[in-house]
Amino acid sequence: MTLEVFPKNWQVIMTNLVVQKYGGTSVGTTDKIKNVANRIKSYYDNGSKVVVVVSAMGHTTDELVDLAEKLSDNPSKREMDMLLSTGEQVSIALLAIALEAIGVPAQSFTGSQVKIITDGNFSNAKIEMIDRTRIDIALSEGKVVIVAGFQGIDKNENITTLGRGGSDTSAVALAATLGAKECEIYTDVDGVYSADPNKVEGAKKHQTITYDEMLELASLGAGVLHPRSVEFAKNYGVTIHVRSSFNMNPGTLVVSEDKLMENIRVSGVTIKNEEARVTLPEVPDKPGIAADLFGALSEKDIIVDVIVQSSPSNGKNTISFTMPRKSLSIAEPILKSFAEKNKTGNPDINDKIAIVSAVGVGMKSHVGVAATMFKALADNSINIEMISTSEIKISCVIKEEEAKKALTEIHKAFKI
Amino acid sequence: MTLEVFPKNWQVIMTNLVVQKYGGTSVGTTDKIKNVANRIKSYYDNGSKVVVVVSAMGHTTDELVDLAEKLSDNPSKREMDMLLSTGEQVSIALLAIALEAIGVPAQSFTGSQVKIITDGNFSNAKIEMIDRTRIDIALSEGKVVIVAGFQGIDKNENITTLGRGGSDTSAVALAATLGAKECEIYTDVDGVYSADPNKVEGAKKHQTITYDEMLELASLGAGVLHPRSVEFAKNYGVTIHVRSSFNMNPGTLVVSEDKLMENIRVSGVTIKNEEARVTLPEVPDKPGIAADLFGALSEKDIIVDVIVQSSPSNGKNTISFTMPRKSLSIAEPILKSFAEKNKTGNPDINDKIAIVSAVGVGMKSHVGVAATMFKALADNSINIEMISTSEIKISCVIKEEEAKKALTEIHKAFKI
Repeated sequence: MTLEVFPKNWQVIMTNLVVQKYGGTSVGTTDKIKNVANRIKSYYDNGSKVVVVVSAMGHTTDELVDLAEKLSDNPSKREMDMLLSTGEQVSIALLAIALEAIGVPAQSFTGSQVKIITDGNFSNAKIEMIDRTRIDIALSEGKVVIVAGFQGIDKNENITTLGRGGSDTSAVALAATLGAKECEIYTDVDGVYSADPNKVEGAKKHQTITYDEMLELASLGAGVLHPRSVEFAKNYGVTIHVRSSFNMNPGTLVVSEDKLMENIRVSGVTIKNEEARVTLPEVPDKPGIAADLFGALSEKDIIVDVIVQSSPSNGKNTISFTMPRKSLSIAEPILKSFAEKNKTGNPDINDKIAIVSAVGVGMKSHVGVAATMFKALADNSINIEMISTSEIKISCVIKEEEAKKALTEIHKAFKI
Repeated sequence: MTLEVFPKNWQVIMTNLVVQKYGGTSVGTTDKIKNVANRIKSYYDNGSKVVVVVSAMGHTTDELVDLAEKLSDNPSKREMDMLLSTGEQVSIALLAIALEAIGVPAQSFTGSQVKIITDGNFSNAKIEMIDRTRIDIALSEGKVVIVAGFQGIDKNENITTLGRGGSDTSAVALAATLGAKECEIYTDVDGVYSADPNKVEGAKKHQTITYDEMLELASLGAGVLHPRSVEFAKNYGVTIHVRSSFNMNPGTLVVSEDKLMENIRVSGVTIKNEEARVTLPEVPDKPGIAADLFGALSEKDIIVDVIVQSSPSNGKNTISFTMPRKSLSIAEPILKSFAEKNKTGNPDINDKIAIVSAVGVGMKSHVGVAATMFKALADNSINIEMISTSEIKISCVIKEEEAKKALTEIHKAFKI
């Protein structure tokens, strides 16, 4: 991920610059757009220079996808990007209109107009460069700048989109390009919690969390921020402020480890449902065999999460992994032909599992985190099918029916 | 209206090039888009190179305008153009997807991508230049090229729109740039008629009609083609073929006078309703006074049609003109202050009039056209309030309640 910044002769030092991103639920209706406009006005009135990134209104993207699906089973990704990018273009124009209606000068820009240059990977493009020229001009004219999220152009000026969560990435990349200290990501929750507050009583909102913790939490399905935007922020040192557009509460700051104000052992406990566990016994212990298996699965876009391989005995391994339950029908023929080709045992599939994980940079300096987690499960007679650990994460595969209880008990055990 | 064409080293001679434009009703649903795709396929299968211009689907534009109106009484024209241009972008992507689904390679382009450069007059911009490079490349790759109508960009890459009927102008300008012999304009009628076939029995479809006749008919409310697209076609010698997307019937060719195959006296009779007639008596006969009056009206965007001024007597004139009835409330204070300032008589307003017109280049070489028209009205006891003539048009202002009868009787009298 590279990001060039064009130096300008007259570059303004933007100490009072704020970059804000509003998601689809925050701009889902004209009333909500008015609400967002009023929020932006309060920053503008305080003398801030404001750059805003917006997503498409509510269900716009789904509606456009439906239209395309009526015309083709397999629409080209270039044309889908052409189609879907209109959603954000509608939002930016409407937000500019709403701002001007309350006396705030504003100008909207498409990804093409502010030259958000990406690679040519339609539907999942990566940002390579942003040209800040037009943004600087509009800001120097006292205008609020509104940029369409989720979209860019490749070097041939084809419209590209950045994939799921792309607007978060647009906002962080703009904050990095413009040298903004903070990028506010407005969403329908008011921060990052130690567990889903709808599922775990006493779940606690963090004041701060590290990029790495956020990355682990995001990839575990705590869907507040998309992993790519967090990676981007980490690489460019942009502080992300996750907060709600429906109140003025401070949210959670996502920062580097050296800025961390808290240093608790475990910052979050998450659960990932609708997963399946696959176990392949008697896999020959020879080089390249894991690459074969997981290469074949990834070619079919199957996202494998936890992978565990036992130590070999008698030249044979057992490989277990988890994958989305809904992809099983695609995976099964691949598993079957892999098993036949390599003379492994029959694949064993359990499609009623969940993954419960504890995440925290504090784990590195605290002993006994894994033990606490395993004990919390054992005390509640919850059997662990697989275990996987990283420097800041411990994941256990358990029965899906025990997931909610596991979540609550682990959260309690860590006294978060 | 200037149009530069970039010469290319490898410019293809496009003898088999066809430019087609499909309006909003032709692409109003996914089924209609499939229908258009099949029509294009028949040209593609015959070896034609096809460039297609499309409008926004059905009521998309109205829906976007409604959203903007919920946010502002007076949205900026720049942001409205940003908003409305998404409608065509959706259509081009969907049509490309529909074509690819039936095996026709296609690529869609926004106005920005094919550099339809306009002036900066948002909401009513004029095309200044089109760069054919990307179109030539896509055509040479064997693709159907789909271009968003109605939109362009100014020299600063702001998105502009071309105003009412703009997609017709986009199509004609592309045909001119690409050197296409014919520009097919698909609409919901199958050609240009001598009178509205829904109102006049025996109205006849023309095989050919001249640009000038079409201009007069268009400005009279026969809303098949927008006047600007006809002017463009006239200036660049592009033949327009007006036809229906719902059948394969040949439509009407709009051509220069020297290509005219028919040379009838009167090619069309039209009626314009919902007009008002204003008469100002005792207007001082001094230079600049008409300019004052019509300047003040045009500043308020009031479209004056027929203007008649009597010969002066005793240093006083009578000025009569027609204007849209709905603009009367805006015009009345202007008329009042003009009358006071210039000490004219009181304005007399009749808001129940219509304008019936006969149009035809054949008039120039045939005597007695005006007499035939006046006699047709007189024989039916229809009183003429005002008369205005040009080289190829005669207009009479009559009572609105007599309009339909006047239309039928004049059409009959000319034996069209």
